[in-house]
Parts: sequence; structure tokens; C-alpha cells
Amino acid sequence: MGAVRNVCVIGLGLIGGSVLRAAADAGRTVWGATTSTSDAETAAADGFAATTDVAAALREAADSDAVVVLAVPLTALNTVLAEVAKHAPDCLLTDVTSVKTPVHDSVRATVPSARFAGGHPMSGTAESGWSAGKSELFDGAAWVVTVESDTDLVAWREAATLALDCGAHVVPLRSEAHDETVARISHLPHLLAAVLASVGAAGGPVAAALAAGSFTDGTRVAGTRPELVRAMTEGNAAALLPVLDEALGALGAARGSLASTGGLAATIDAGHKATRQMAEYRRTSGTNVRVRLSASDARESLLAVGERGGRITAFDDDAALAEMP
Amino acid sequence: MGAVRNVCVIGLGLIGGSVLRAAADAGRTVWGATTSTSDAETAAADGFAATTDVAAALREAADSDAVVVLAVPLTALNTVLAEVAKHAPDCLLTDVTSVKTPVHDSVRATVPSARFAGGHPMSGTAESGWSAGKSELFDGAAWVVTVESDTDLVAWREAATLALDCGAHVVPLRSEAHDETVARISHLPHLLAAVLASVGAAGGPVAAALAAGSFTDGTRVAGTRPELVRAMTEGNAAALLPVLDEALGALGAARGSLASTGGLAATIDAGHKATRQMAEYRRTSGTNVRVRLSASDARESLLAVGERGGRITAFDDDAALAEMP
Repeated sequence: MGAVRNVCVIGLGLIGGSVLRAAADAGRTVWGATTSTSDAETAAADGFAATTDVAAALREAADSDAVVVLAVPLTALNTVLAEVAKHAPDCLLTDVTSVKTPVHDSVRATVPSARFAGGHPMSGTAESGWSAGKSELFDGAAWVVTVESDTDLVAWREAATLALDCGAHVVPLRSEAHDETVARISHLPHLLAAVLASVGAAGGPVAAALAAGSFTDGTRVAGTRPELVRAMTEGNAAALLPVLDEALGALGAARGSLASTGGLAATIDAGHKATRQMAEYRRTSGTNVRVRLSASDARESLLAVGERGGRITAFDDDAALAEMP
Repeated sequence: MGAVRNVCVIGLGLIGGSVLRAAADAGRTVWGATTSTSDAETAAADGFAATTDVAAALREAADSDAVVVLAVPLTALNTVLAEVAKHAPDCLLTDVTSVKTPVHDSVRATVPSARFAGGHPMSGTAESGWSAGKSELFDGAAWVVTVESDTDLVAWREAATLALDCGAHVVPLRSEAHDETVARISHLPHLLAAVLASVGAAGGPVAAALAAGSFTDGTRVAGTRPELVRAMTEGNAAALLPVLDEALGALGAARGSLASTGGLAATIDAGHKATRQMAEYRRTSGTNVRVRLSASDARESLLAVGERGGRITAFDDDAALAEMP
């Protein structure tokens, strides 16, 4: 499959900065650009090729056929994509943004010639900035790389290989499935944590004096920077809304049951069963699957891995190797 | 204030078993009784005086003027109180149950002559049984000891001294304030965790593959034994219902805002601010207060400590020493 690609990261915050470090540790030639002067200066002081000249970084990527990784907030994405269209329109392109459908749509509209596969590592949001990043951030984490009917499989493999080089395993999913799932397991948790924190604090100093494990666990992510939480939840509004309605329905049913019968068995038993079910889903069966990327149904086979809860852990010749649950 | 009291613990599960161990480690003479043959046998095998003969244990308590600690589930409380009324009707009595108003009412109705102050250590519910207990379970934890207008201050001090001996600090509160507060910081978190677990598991194996920090934190207590969660939440239904309505209101407002404007700023900013507020409440000022238990307004002074988020950390002659936030 040719030489190991150079990596150009645009955006050097927590995630982009960690990708830059991890890719360098994996032996890649890396450089980065960011509009944040402080992130660029700190990254350069740490010995990395980092600049505030996004255009120059992209031109270098175009010249060397590097993989370009967009690690900017969703709100800055279109501005950066316009730069990509201007300076590296045919590049191998991926991103690490927390929603995928809007990114996919923007890339299609703005840089149609880019060889693109979207990405999302399921790692850390509580801190931010270059200084919070670290090479090991993605160790053992799931990293979604999206597969659509028109996904370029060379681009997909490059994005997936970068994720593996960063220490993650790869979950192939359609953008839509990704967005619905992160609404369930990331965006709803952030909203519930915010609500719980507010209801707790309404109890005043006494609530603070008595709060222990269940409250601390349930509100931990409410300490995340509000701009980051807003960007990911509001950016995924379409997928989040029906999931939020599911939660409201379940909580409303608990309320109704408590008020009418004094009982909460249905809610509590369902939650306990769900916890065991999630653990069950995670149990690995030891089954391994090879997906030949040159096969005509490669995209469907990759998606079948992701949809069943499997993960790509390596590449071997033209095949992706998957561990199934 | 006389000699250190003997301690008789009825119920030798996680909490009762830990009280027995911690009181023994503090140099108290301790014995326990439980209707669970397995808990009694394991406790005896561990070298403790433990029996299934609740009546005998209570008679010994009456004979030696020991503090009796009720550590049985709320559902078993009335049965045990009937035994107390029969075998140790005038005893110094406390409990470690997670709701206080119903316990207070039951004690008044069943054992009116007992010298009673209710208790609730804010520690561990995920495991259960004697074997899960440990002497250090209460180290650094808040332990509520209730103060009502008719609370016997000798009984209150005995319950509070036991809590301190177990490694906890004491928060004096009215039963009603306790019950409302634990609804906010313990029972609501358990319900939200159950709902989140259910909505997450509805996402199938893909949700399990992507779930990370925010979901794991938010659902941790959903793994608690359902019987324990039901006992504490259903036993506190009256206080939990309005708190649950606050949460539903806040979540519904988020839903409305997301659907109409696409924004979640109010919810997320409020949650973040609440998290900082809770941390602020916990900051100690270094202010210390002495509450003389022989003063005519001792009960009001103790309650003022608890209501302001303070904690009793020691006794000195006839005074309780408090650290204020």
C-alpha cells in the first residue's frame, strides 16, 4: 500500500495536538497549523513543526500527498474547508469532529475532489488546548471512521491506519449511525449531568455537604467547558432530539409510577438490566473476520463489522482484520 | 460524659457490618445480630460476636445500656422496632437507614421511650452483605445525625460519637431536610443513571462499542442491586417526587430549546455554573464553632451548623466542635 503517509493536522487543541504527538510517536512525519497563536507557540516550543499559517501547512500536504486531519471545532470547519479547497483540493482528508453527517455534507459541498473519510475518536473532552494533549490519549479507545456508499477506500484505510497508529481501534459506521449513537452515549449524558448538577446545587450547602459517589459520578462531565458541550450537542441537534425524547419519556414514566403507585420497579429494573446488557455486548467472542478492501462489497462488510459492535485492529495486505463481539 | 458505650448492631450487611468492624477498631465492645444466617456465620468466622438471636442481642444491650444501631432495610424496620420495644424499650437508639422521616415516625410510634437520634452515613450502596463491609467504609464520609425539637441530646451525642469513631464527620439536620437533600444528591442520580443506561442500551452493540467516559460515569450506579435502589427511592417517595419534577422541568426546557432554536446554552451553562457552585460550597473557611450541648438553644445551634454546610468533627467536654464552610 505504499509508504507511510505524512500527517498534517489543522487545529492543535486537545484532540489535534494529541493526534500530532501520537502520529509522531508512531514514526510519521508530522506538522500542524492552528489559528491559535498560543497553541502554535507551545507546540513549537515542544519541538513540533507548528505554525499559524494554515495555507502553507496545506500546500505542504498537497505537495507530499500527506493525510490532512481537520481537528477544529465544528463552528470553524467551513472556514478551514475553504482553505483546503484552495490549497489541497485533492488531498487525503479526515477529521476528528464529534458529529459526522454535517461534516460529511460540508466536505462534499466545499471540497468535492478530496479523498475523504470522516473520523471521531471517543476520547476526552473535559480539558482543552495543546497543553492538555498527550500521545496516549487514544490508547484503547474506539475511533469511528465513517463509511458511506461513495467513500474512497484508500482514504478510509489511511484514516483508519492513522487511528490504529494513534493506539485506537477502528469502528466503521455510517455517519448517521454514528450521530445517533453519540447522541445516546455522549450527548445525552452531558445533558443529564447538567440537569443533575443544577438540581443538586439548588439544594444549597447541605447538598454539597452530603453529595457523594452517585452525585459525583453523575455530574462529572458537567464540569466540561460549556462551549465544547454546546458545540457537540447543538451540532448534533437532529440526532439528539429523538434520544432526548426517549429519556424524557422514561423519566416521565418513572414520575407517573412514583406518583400513582409509589413504585419505581420498572425504571430501576430496566436500568439494571440495561447495564448488564451493555456489559454483555462488550464481551468478545474471539471471532475474527477479514474484510478484503478490494472486494466489491467491501463497504457493506466494513459496516457489518461496526453494526455488530466489532472493531478493526490491524491491516494485512489488502484486508482489514476485525475482532467481533 | 461517662464511659465509652458498648455497641449492639442489628443487621450485619454492608453498612451494619462496617459499623460493627469500625466500632470494634475504635475500641468499643461490640456485638451484632442478623436474621441472615450466612451474614451471622461469616461475621462469627471473622471473630465477631454475631448471632441470629436478635432478642438476645437486644436484651444484652438493655442490660449494659449499649447504643443500639439499626442497620436493616427500611422494609424490615418495623419488625425490628417491635423487638426493640419488647427487649430494650429504653435503650439509646440510632439507625443507618437512607431515609429519616419514616424511621423517625416509626420509632415514635413503636418505641416511644427509646432515647433516639436517627443517622445516615453517606457511604456505599453498590455492594451488599457482611463480606462487602470494611472498617474504613466511613472514613472521611458525611454522617447525618438528625435533630428534631424533641431529640434527646444524650442520644444525639452518642449517635454522633459513634459516627466520629467510625471515621466520619457529623452533619446535624432535621429529618425532612435530610430526606429532601438525599433525593437531590442520591435518589435522583440513581433514577437518571437507570434512564441513561436504558437509552444507551437501546442503541445496541454499537452504543456499547462507543460508550466511554461520560456514559460510564453517568451509569455507574445503575449497576447497584435493584432491591437496594428501590428501597431507598420508594421509601423516600414524598421527598423525591418534587425533585424529580425539577429534573423533568429542566430536561423538558432543554428539549424545548433544542427543538425551537437549536440551542442548549441555558441548560449547559446552568449545569456548569452549578458544578462550580457546589465546589464553592465545599470550600472550608477555617471558621470553627463550639456548640454547648447544655445550652437551651443547643438543637437550633446544631441545626445551624448543618444547614450552613458545616460539620461536627469532635466533642470537647459538653461542646460539639464544628468546622464551617
